[in-house]
Amino acid sequence: MFLRNVWYVAAWAQDLPSEGMLARKFLNERVILYRDTKGAVHALRDQCPHRAAPLSVGRREGDSIRCMYHGLLFDGAGKCIEVPGVERIPPNLDVQAFPVREQDNIIWIWMGDPALSLKEGPVRLEATSSPDKWFYEPGYLHYNQASYQLIMDNLLDFSHLGFVHENTISGGTASSEVRAQIERFETGVKISRKYYDPLGVPPAFKPLAKFTGPADRWQIYDWRVPGNLLIMESGNARAGVGALEGNIPEDAIRFSSVQALTPETETSTHYFFMQAHDDAERKEEFNDILVRGVKTAFLEDRAMIEAQQRVLIEEPDAPMNAIPADAALNQGRWILKRLLEAENKVSAVA
Amino acid sequence: MFLRNVWYVAAWAQDLPSEGMLARKFLNERVILYRDTKGAVHALRDQCPHRAAPLSVGRREGDSIRCMYHGLLFDGAGKCIEVPGVERIPPNLDVQAFPVREQDNIIWIWMGDPALSLKEGPVRLEATSSPDKWFYEPGYLHYNQASYQLIMDNLLDFSHLGFVHENTISGGTASSEVRAQIERFETGVKISRKYYDPLGVPPAFKPLAKFTGPADRWQIYDWRVPGNLLIMESGNARAGVGALEGNIPEDAIRFSSVQALTPETETSTHYFFMQAHDDAERKEEFNDILVRGVKTAFLEDRAMIEAQQRVLIEEPDAPMNAIPADAALNQGRWILKRLLEAENKVSAVA
Amino acid sequence: MFLRNVWYVAAWAQDLPSEGMLARKFLNERVILYRDTKGAVHALRDQCPHRAAPLSVGRREGDSIRCMYHGLLFDGAGKCIEVPGVERIPPNLDVQAFPVREQDNIIWIWMGDPALSLKEGPVRLEATSSPDKWFYEPGYLHYNQASYQLIMDNLLDFSHLGFVHENTISGGTASSEVRAQIERFETGVKISRKYYDPLGVPPAFKPLAKFTGPADRWQIYDWRVPGNLLIMESGNARAGVGALEGNIPEDAIRFSSVQALTPETETSTHYFFMQAHDDAERKEEFNDILVRGVKTAFLEDRAMIEAQQRVLIEEPDAPMNAIPADAALNQGRWILKRLLEAENKVSAVA
Repeated sequence: MFLRNVWYVAAWAQDLPSEGMLARKFLNERVILYRDTKGAVHALRDQCPHRAAPLSVGRREGDSIRCMYHGLLFDGAGKCIEVPGVERIPPNLDVQAFPVREQDNIIWIWMGDPALSLKEGPVRLEATSSPDKWFYEPGYLHYNQASYQLIMDNLLDFSHLGFVHENTISGGTASSEVRAQIERFETGVKISRKYYDPLGVPPAFKPLAKFTGPADRWQIYDWRVPGNLLIMESGNARAGVGALEGNIPEDAIRFSSVQALTPETETSTHYFFMQAHDDAERKEEFNDILVRGVKTAFLEDRAMIEAQQRVLIEEPDAPMNAIPADAALNQGRWILKRLLEAENKVSAVA
Repeated sequence: MFLRNVWYVAAWAQDLPSEGMLARKFLNERVILYRDTKGAVHALRDQCPHRAAPLSVGRREGDSIRCMYHGLLFDGAGKCIEVPGVERIPPNLDVQAFPVREQDNIIWIWMGDPALSLKEGPVRLEATSSPDKWFYEPGYLHYNQASYQLIMDNLLDFSHLGFVHENTISGGTASSEVRAQIERFETGVKISRKYYDPLGVPPAFKPLAKFTGPADRWQIYDWRVPGNLLIMESGNARAGVGALEGNIPEDAIRFSSVQALTPETETSTHYFFMQAHDDAERKEEFNDILVRGVKTAFLEDRAMIEAQQRVLIEEPDAPMNAIPADAALNQGRWILKRLLEAENKVSAVA
Repeated sequence: MFLRNVWYVAAWAQDLPSEGMLARKFLNERVILYRDTKGAVHALRDQCPHRAAPLSVGRREGDSIRCMYHGLLFDGAGKCIEVPGVERIPPNLDVQAFPVREQDNIIWIWMGDPALSLKEGPVRLEATSSPDKWFYEPGYLHYNQASYQLIMDNLLDFSHLGFVHENTISGGTASSEVRAQIERFETGVKISRKYYDPLGVPPAFKPLAKFTGPADRWQIYDWRVPGNLLIMESGNARAGVGALEGNIPEDAIRFSSVQALTPETETSTHYFFMQAHDDAERKEEFNDILVRGVKTAFLEDRAMIEAQQRVLIEEPDAPMNAIPADAALNQGRWILKRLLEAENKVSAVA
């Protein structure tokens, strides 16, 4: 089950070239994304209404897409504008178009009722759209075998950090014992963790650090259930100078990051991520260290979550017995359940 | 659904060696083909009646096939003629034999009621059996993921030529706009296309051409639904000398070709093809150019049809909205449907 | 369907190292096996009761296993003894433990009701536990696509020897014609074959032979349906000196062997085997020759049985028509059926 009437991340803007197409599946539907000659983005169902050939084996021609089986031509709104050898275009040959927006260096897609997409645009993201303040390289991982819900569980759970990421973004198992503050909102969860870490800056971020020794660390964390978006402010400062009370010293490291999960199928997921830093001088170098460091950690998650998914595919009703650290993920699941029910109730009425 | 009471192409005669066996699946059934010591062809179900081991991992011994699990020996009619260590052969150990014919350099098989196979032999094919007139090299492609019906659609549709085969057997998209003449018969469709092509002989056939410049081109096309057989006369002549009215000049290129689709499973297909030319002097050279050129074009079809099949496996009831160029394929599908219904009605009565 | 309340071979003792774990599936259930610091073996369900992550991607810590997703720690009895950051362990976090025994150089597992495992231990095996008398190297094969029942059929059937193993452990097809003596017991079958073989010692055992020429050969064979165990005494002696009547000459070759089938899933199987010889002087050399020779023969079986299984997966109700050589396998199947019915009747009552 997927929420449909929400904006999902379809691609990083830079991953959609000016020529060609990008074929991806979202919420079990095949989609092609392309830019017209003015750079505007279009999203069409990747299936010709004539004989069901995928348009992704077709080609872009100017502002349009041509199916290369029998030559039907479609404009960016999905309208069939040419059938070779035919004066008058027969009925029912338009292809479904999906609402898209390009905003904050992200291409967003709406897989639900197009009319509802007009109400509100995608959430604004400072981290991806403040080129003078935040520096980053966008990242992408494909989960071949994991439902977005299992990855969402993972992102709402800090207790795995010390185990799964012992040698990357967590420095040791101590951080798994820190209790997080959790606030629940209508459509999301806010999690805050502030703690003293005797092991200091974790391995993946060490190359960026301007201090050594123990650290005060914080992670302020907004999880938005619609669109599966994580927006996080985090940082590491020299311990004992009051960073956790707001006196953040000059030599602290600060991050602003965004992660997004877009379901591909029930058991596969697109995972978009970025982690921005604010060091203008060493911009490129730090971009590179961060995108690789974070990706290494997310590959650790992926190995664990896909192993978990394999068990659940064999035993879909495997028992899940709670521990206190599940508080946030349980809140997230509860909100998701409520939103799914609401959406399906509305469409049942409509 | 398959038509069963028809002759299908099982193999090119030359592909069945005098020793050994050829294991293929037809209409979802495992079959082995082999020649006895006199060269006569036999077809047996590829499954031992004792413990279901495939005979194809067995071996030919003289005129017989031995299952190499427990040593049962079967003659060419499927009769069990030896059980090691046993005087009297127990009952029910014969293996099913299928009617086969070797004719016109093709091995034909009958997967339906054997009694009905006696009524009429396979259709005679001039192109494959006139060694002094037509020269060719036989070709074969396996469709790993396409029902025979999708390939039949493709063969009954000329409008894809300009798009799928732009750089091989069609010279440009113009040919996709030519209207074909279609005649429907009891069990088949005849399609004729005659047209002026300003681009001349298409790329795949250029090495055989004795003229340059624009061409008059023709394709006369018999599609026989039983057995999924295509028999085609085609050619290219210097434009403007009246070839399309019957005055075919000396330097024209003429082809006579046969294509056959034999279902392997519901979504995989054996595709046999040949395209003969009539230039005795350059026989071998042209054979080689043609079999490779045609195969290249058919690989273009296969890539498109398998992409289409992948969509249809995910969405079996995908809408198919007609364009005028679908006329012949719609006729073909209609005839097939009628024949399938007739065959199933008869077997329901019987 | 599997018999559950029986001891199955889980591993050769030497294959479970003192550190680390061995993850295997038995009777469709994921299990990890490991040794604690005293060397005692434990078997736990390979699935964390918290979020279903497999423990096999966790790690051994001292006498315990830690799940590396959220750090839960389990002792060898499956008891959860630590949840990071939590004083009091929440309920329902114990993981299932399976009864195991290490005996006769084999690790045995009980996949049924643990209480019933106490009644009786695994059968004692002389061949694997007489280091001064019998010498061997243990062997293992994985059947990726064969039910244990098809392999059991194969082991209870000597008539395939001359065909499947013509060039390895049988010297020719003659041996397939020897009639075996079969005795049926409550839970097993005893098969005896004694015969003159004009071809002498078969190819796989030739390097061990101290004589040449025709041989008297014997195979005395205990098949125990619970646990799918085969215990065999066999040998080859110079022909004509009365070996089959008990006068076994000095230069005979004698073997004592054990084979065991443990179901992995309905269509995949663990196959454990060993074939011991009694030549103390050339112990290592002969161990090596035997484990390789026997494995080569068992790979011949596997190729045939997996081919047979592929047919049966496509056609589960394929006819199986009997020949006289099926007597023992039919007895074996009958006993298995009876035991399965008895076990299921008891659990239906309970």
